[in-house]
Amino acid sequence: FQDVSHMVIFGFGFFLMFLRRYGFSSTGFNLLIVVVGVQCSLLIEDFLVFHLQKEHEDGLKRITKATVSMTAVVISTGAVLGKTNPVQLILMTVVEIIVFHISRWTNERILQIPENTSMMHVHLFGAYFGLAVSSRFSGPLPRSEKNTSTLKSDLLSMLGTLFLWVFWPSFNSVLLTNKNKAIYNTYFALTVSAVTAFLLSVLTTKDGKFRMTHVHSAVLAGGVAVGYAAQSIEYPWIAMILGLLASLITILGSYCVQRCLNPALKIHDTSGVHFTFGLPAVLGALAQVVLLVIKNWADLSRYVNSCYEFHTISPFPSLIYLYWICVFLPIGLILNLKPFKTIPVSKYFEDQFYWEVSF
Amino acid sequence: FQDVSHMVIFGFGFFLMFLRRYGFSSTGFNLLIVVVGVQCSLLIEDFLVFHLQKEHEDGLKRITKATVSMTAVVISTGAVLGKTNPVQLILMTVVEIIVFHISRWTNERILQIPENTSMMHVHLFGAYFGLAVSSRFSGPLPRSEKNTSTLKSDLLSMLGTLFLWVFWPSFNSVLLTNKNKAIYNTYFALTVSAVTAFLLSVLTTKDGKFRMTHVHSAVLAGGVAVGYAAQSIEYPWIAMILGLLASLITILGSYCVQRCLNPALKIHDTSGVHFTFGLPAVLGALAQVVLLVIKNWADLSRYVNSCYEFHTISPFPSLIYLYWICVFLPIGLILNLKPFKTIPVSKYFEDQFYWEVSF
Amino acid sequence: FQDVSHMVIFGFGFFLMFLRRYGFSSTGFNLLIVVVGVQCSLLIEDFLVFHLQKEHEDGLKRITKATVSMTAVVISTGAVLGKTNPVQLILMTVVEIIVFHISRWTNERILQIPENTSMMHVHLFGAYFGLAVSSRFSGPLPRSEKNTSTLKSDLLSMLGTLFLWVFWPSFNSVLLTNKNKAIYNTYFALTVSAVTAFLLSVLTTKDGKFRMTHVHSAVLAGGVAVGYAAQSIEYPWIAMILGLLASLITILGSYCVQRCLNPALKIHDTSGVHFTFGLPAVLGALAQVVLLVIKNWADLSRYVNSCYEFHTISPFPSLIYLYWICVFLPIGLILNLKPFKTIPVSKYFEDQFYWEVSF
Repeated sequence: FQDVSHMVIFGFGFFLMFLRRYGFSSTGFNLLIVVVGVQCSLLIEDFLVFHLQKEHEDGLKRITKATVSMTAVVISTGAVLGKTNPVQLILMTVVEIIVFHISRWTNERILQIPENTSMMHVHLFGAYFGLAVSSRFSGPLPRSEKNTSTLKSDLLSMLGTLFLWVFWPSFNSVLLTNKNKAIYNTYFALTVSAVTAFLLSVLTTKDGKFRMTHVHSAVLAGGVAVGYAAQSIEYPWIAMILGLLASLITILGSYCVQRCLNPALKIHDTSGVHFTFGLPAVLGALAQVVLLVIKNWADLSRYVNSCYEFHTISPFPSLIYLYWICVFLPIGLILNLKPFKTIPVSKYFEDQFYWEVSF
Repeated sequence: FQDVSHMVIFGFGFFLMFLRRYGFSSTGFNLLIVVVGVQCSLLIEDFLVFHLQKEHEDGLKRITKATVSMTAVVISTGAVLGKTNPVQLILMTVVEIIVFHISRWTNERILQIPENTSMMHVHLFGAYFGLAVSSRFSGPLPRSEKNTSTLKSDLLSMLGTLFLWVFWPSFNSVLLTNKNKAIYNTYFALTVSAVTAFLLSVLTTKDGKFRMTHVHSAVLAGGVAVGYAAQSIEYPWIAMILGLLASLITILGSYCVQRCLNPALKIHDTSGVHFTFGLPAVLGALAQVVLLVIKNWADLSRYVNSCYEFHTISPFPSLIYLYWICVFLPIGLILNLKPFKTIPVSKYFEDQFYWEVSF
Repeated sequence: FQDVSHMVIFGFGFFLMFLRRYGFSSTGFNLLIVVVGVQCSLLIEDFLVFHLQKEHEDGLKRITKATVSMTAVVISTGAVLGKTNPVQLILMTVVEIIVFHISRWTNERILQIPENTSMMHVHLFGAYFGLAVSSRFSGPLPRSEKNTSTLKSDLLSMLGTLFLWVFWPSFNSVLLTNKNKAIYNTYFALTVSAVTAFLLSVLTTKDGKFRMTHVHSAVLAGGVAVGYAAQSIEYPWIAMILGLLASLITILGSYCVQRCLNPALKIHDTSGVHFTFGLPAVLGALAQVVLLVIKNWADLSRYVNSCYEFHTISPFPSLIYLYWICVFLPIGLILNLKPFKTIPVSKYFEDQFYWEVSF
């Protein structure tokens, strides 16, 4: 529990701290929305417990689940970082937490997806919700230097990335029963994606230098991709391949998305959540579908017998799963947030607008 | 154990690091006094064990208790931050640890307060001891800019605050047997006080901006206030109300104390320990008294029977408890430290005075 | 496991971050070599398991052991920090991990040293391997300011040191069965060496100021020295004396080594691994030999009987142990690395050479 709390508050707080003049807001607002979101999430759970006659759970387990849910909101925040005011952020947090709980509820009730898998939707959900919201905000002024990073802010952001990296295995395993295997698989995926991140960063930049942004986003891709299937992967090499692919699509995605997709859809994705969390999560979901199909293929005879059982892991949910992902994208894109009071574009990415700053 | 050690060394080290030119000293001297204090504390415990025939405890448990005791000294340091030299700090550490152990011993032996409660005196004790010591030091020169914070130092201080925030539930529960409940209650108090801190910071500042100092001090207030009663609070909403009140008195206190009380008593409280730790701890102590009275009121019949029992939790100790708090303030204020060699006022808040600094 | 991973990635990453313009590379390359090294180490273990018919171990245990092994490489990196390119670093990592595994294997098979002791060779091995490698690199240009530290980088390095300090007890105990005792002893050694570090820093510098470099290196010395014998030390005062001696030789060593030994051997040891990890590890190894001799002396009668037993702890391995340390130094010094492509001396300690940096 401590690890997850640590990771969300501290890791993400500093992970998002790469903007030149937005350090206070990144860490401060992150803390604010996490505490608002956790309470909101707990209230919704209580409401569900009351109405659906679910059994009551242990206090710490509930806080942990609420914190994991909050990861979705924190990821979404990354997409609109520096463009929202605190009131908008809190509204977004509340709306997103409610939608996420509905999504989880439908997943668990209708699609019979087990809880820990539905919990791992956080990355996918968070990334595309964030993108949908960010499409309603105008981009920054051209020639503005405020959304660039400095040496110092990049270092503190590296600190946040290292925190996330170290705590990711705990995050992926916290709600599972077979913790050791999930930690093991996540660790391998993370190591491979870290190596790939450095390698690809050298290969894709012009004069063979590393680019910090690549390292930031791609080292974590493996952990995101392996999230869905952490418990069910049998051999470490599958996790390693997933890590490799995740890192690959993150870095290649960062070029494609920023050059083609974002201008076309008029999205300005401040911290690149699309390729950092969105694409690897899609990969992870696809990988789990493939793994489930292969697994059920192998024991087809046994499968036929168990097909009518209630809690079976069958290709049927897997297909709906795919469908759900496809449906979710437009839903996310349609959803938008009526801003309470918008910030003038010229004030984007400014700490001074919200904080009493002494220089 | 690791968590508490982490919190004291790392969290407080960076929490105190908001001064412009005092980063080295804040973190370095913090480490120094913690290690001196822990050893000193262990020696005193050994002495007590030897003389009072208490049973020997496990090694790790003893280090943990020594580290928790050290929190009092670290909090006191906050009040005189930048105004003492290392020799004074070490002397203060030794004196404070001895007085704290005597205070704990009287609490446990004479007032029959259980050990974990007497341990939670650290905040109250530390804050008022620190204030008493700081009243013997002259304030900084007017128009001096050295005791202001910079953007960078505030960020690192935010890092320390987040550390403290995340580890506070561990801190409150480390010496208890019913850990889960204490973690649960502390977490709720912390979330509510974080939300309140942001809200009040907006409401109290002139143009509706956040002030970093408010956030620093008020997000932790809930954890401090709930410390005494973490184990005995039955419903989370009590913890949440405590968190709300604690945050409230911290921010309102920060205005009152800095404008009225401090100039009157000639106290200069560098990092505001009075309202960050002192006032919430008073609130927490009062809250526990109220809770005990309510609890004993409810089962009055059973209470009368158990009144003469030895380890009873009765209103009698509760009252003495209140008295003890009242008595403690003047004791603390009378106590002062004969400075070995004083630093000239013009050298306050300067790293260069102690460290070989390369700019 | 989490603690060790945290310590190696995060603690060392920031511990090495004291150079003015080398922050990105210190943390980034540290992550890179750790992930490469852990995978490499796991492969070698698999190879050994396959060939030597050792029993298979639990996944997490294996990762932990691989991470502990990597500490050797990370320490070596400290000696050549800022003078190698990433390709050289990776090559060095692979070579060092292979040599370290061979060294461990000979220790365990031929000298009958128990596994946890042979694991604690990391500091000794890492430091002298690093020195040997660094002797093949030319020193920095005279009058260059790039290998000096700044206020900010020193602060972040202090952050890394505090992390290492806090996690060192976990590190020393992670592979042992009697964890509590090892944590206890390490903690005492660390506290004493921290106090000594501050004291000696004042005594040895010209005008009685603290020097950050001393504090950095000497606070950890106790933990390094006590590593070998953490489990077998009976009384805390032995650990405390070890901590005192370790801190003493570190600070005195830092003067001797930098003035006499390094110019003579043409070694430029960027982060002072010789006196930070090398000398305390030698002390720790000697201390363990002395402790073993004393122990066996005491029960000589029983010793004679058990002398022919297989897993006996006898003076015989102890002597070979000493010999091994003596032999290892020249081996390490002879070993050198054929650099793939060397960096021009003028580009030493520069982030810009590898990273796309925005100023």
